[in-house]
Amino acid sequence: MAPIRTQWTRLIRFVAVETGQVHLGEPVDPNQDVGLDCQQKKPIYAYEILGSAIDPAAQVTKLVLTVKELLAPLARDQVGGIVRCLGLNYADHAIEANLQKPSVPVIFYKAPTTLIGPGAVVTVPKIAQPAHEHLPDYEVELVIVIGKAARDVSEADALDYVLGYTGANDVSFRKLQLSAGGGQWGFSKSFDDTNPIGPCIVAASAIPDPQRVPLKCVVNGQTLQNGSTADQIFNVRQTIAYLSQGTTLLPGSLILTGTPAGVGFVKKPPLYLKGGDNMHVWLGNGIGTLANLVVEEDAKVKAKL
Amino acid sequence: MAPIRTQWTRLIRFVAVETGQVHLGEPVDPNQDVGLDCQQKKPIYAYEILGSAIDPAAQVTKLVLTVKELLAPLARDQVGGIVRCLGLNYADHAIEANLQKPSVPVIFYKAPTTLIGPGAVVTVPKIAQPAHEHLPDYEVELVIVIGKAARDVSEADALDYVLGYTGANDVSFRKLQLSAGGGQWGFSKSFDDTNPIGPCIVAASAIPDPQRVPLKCVVNGQTLQNGSTADQIFNVRQTIAYLSQGTTLLPGSLILTGTPAGVGFVKKPPLYLKGGDNMHVWLGNGIGTLANLVVEEDAKVKAKL
Repeated sequence: MAPIRTQWTRLIRFVAVETGQVHLGEPVDPNQDVGLDCQQKKPIYAYEILGSAIDPAAQVTKLVLTVKELLAPLARDQVGGIVRCLGLNYADHAIEANLQKPSVPVIFYKAPTTLIGPGAVVTVPKIAQPAHEHLPDYEVELVIVIGKAARDVSEADALDYVLGYTGANDVSFRKLQLSAGGGQWGFSKSFDDTNPIGPCIVAASAIPDPQRVPLKCVVNGQTLQNGSTADQIFNVRQTIAYLSQGTTLLPGSLILTGTPAGVGFVKKPPLYLKGGDNMHVWLGNGIGTLANLVVEEDAKVKAKL
Repeated sequence: MAPIRTQWTRLIRFVAVETGQVHLGEPVDPNQDVGLDCQQKKPIYAYEILGSAIDPAAQVTKLVLTVKELLAPLARDQVGGIVRCLGLNYADHAIEANLQKPSVPVIFYKAPTTLIGPGAVVTVPKIAQPAHEHLPDYEVELVIVIGKAARDVSEADALDYVLGYTGANDVSFRKLQLSAGGGQWGFSKSFDDTNPIGPCIVAASAIPDPQRVPLKCVVNGQTLQNGSTADQIFNVRQTIAYLSQGTTLLPGSLILTGTPAGVGFVKKPPLYLKGGDNMHVWLGNGIGTLANLVVEEDAKVKAKL
């Protein structure tokens, strides 16, 4: 086994000004936070990448394109079906939620129809309104992107199956997480357009130690989560090895690895997301910012009338 | 709204003797149990269907092909990502499992890599061995196949989104269902090659009342489950309406609607599946038999050596 090597270091998917079409690219400025700059309407230039995002053989060209709209780095039909998520995977978050530190990974699945990109609107569906009862909540998370079919892999080999890493905001609806689905979380975690991912995939080779990624969440300018993947209960190697037992993790599969302390529903009084809130989740090591506005579905309908 | 109309009444997917390729077809004999006859090596002839299984406009031709191998009626990449499942949806099953009749649907998700067809081998993975500890179990279920994108649909309109119905055997690993995933069932329900579906999709128009479908499970010749969808706690209309809240059910989506009483793990002593067991799950109204052999993964590895 050997680590996956890609020509690109950071991969974005975007609509180009020059063509109006969807392209893959590598940002020309290796230090640019493309998610933040896109939201602030600053120019982003990228070398076009030819091939598929989940094919490590994709080639970086010298053609420079201008980003018009930044998209999720993978399309919904590229993620191998389900999106895998860990719950309660940071000790400080388990403590604040008043739940025991888990002895095995807490694993739930969500539908690919949840996935949206940087800058897209997070929709609070009618079933999860009013917000003060349903407590929509933010969760910054490191996402593992699988690059090679993985089944029954060892912890020692696990990182060799990683294409790269990206960020996510696992927006959660706390009342339904507990009351809907009969104790199973998948339904409440699967509403359309509630899970931003991106802004880019950073190649595994550029993050040799995924347990040193800082991550934070800022809502309306206030920093609410500020942690590090160093505090994960099950680390990235353990997570991949565990999830691959008897199970093929297809190329493109996403694994959301849980969120650190600071979520809203445990605060007194609870803090909850509402229409108009601006969420910025940020991860270090080149991943950058996912900036997403919260919209309540009824309000959106009214706005259209 | 109006019900979905298809030219076909029963749709199968198969490898044809004449071409060696995968085709869709309508069995020439409308009364043939194609799943049973395929297992018994009896001839099956089908009129070729042109188009996609999930496109209601697919056309039944007059070309007759001979079935060489019967496949799951939908491929893994046609089911819209995740497979949705209801738990504890028959009162008699909730009672035998010593669990309360649920007040809301118990919903869990599985990966599309679980799906296999009629006649394929159900694999007990190494993580779920030995069988006497892990209690692999059979579950006959009616499956709803969605034919039109459904979101926030009413119970009154729900059946208008149904393409048809098929059968499933939601093979379950009871120890891991309780001990792995931190109380979340998706992981233990998502092992590769553990969920046969088929043998055919019967068009919604041919099953106007999905609450009158008999279903049973026979293992090694012994009838262990023998029920009717009349006993479902949440019926098909309610299930679709509930699941579509805030959530787009994509065309091709599968919803497994739970299993009646008679599963193995509640028996005293528990009955469990082991390598070499023959499972026949059967559903009426033209759906037919899913015949699948159980193989323990280690044994399969040994057999290859």
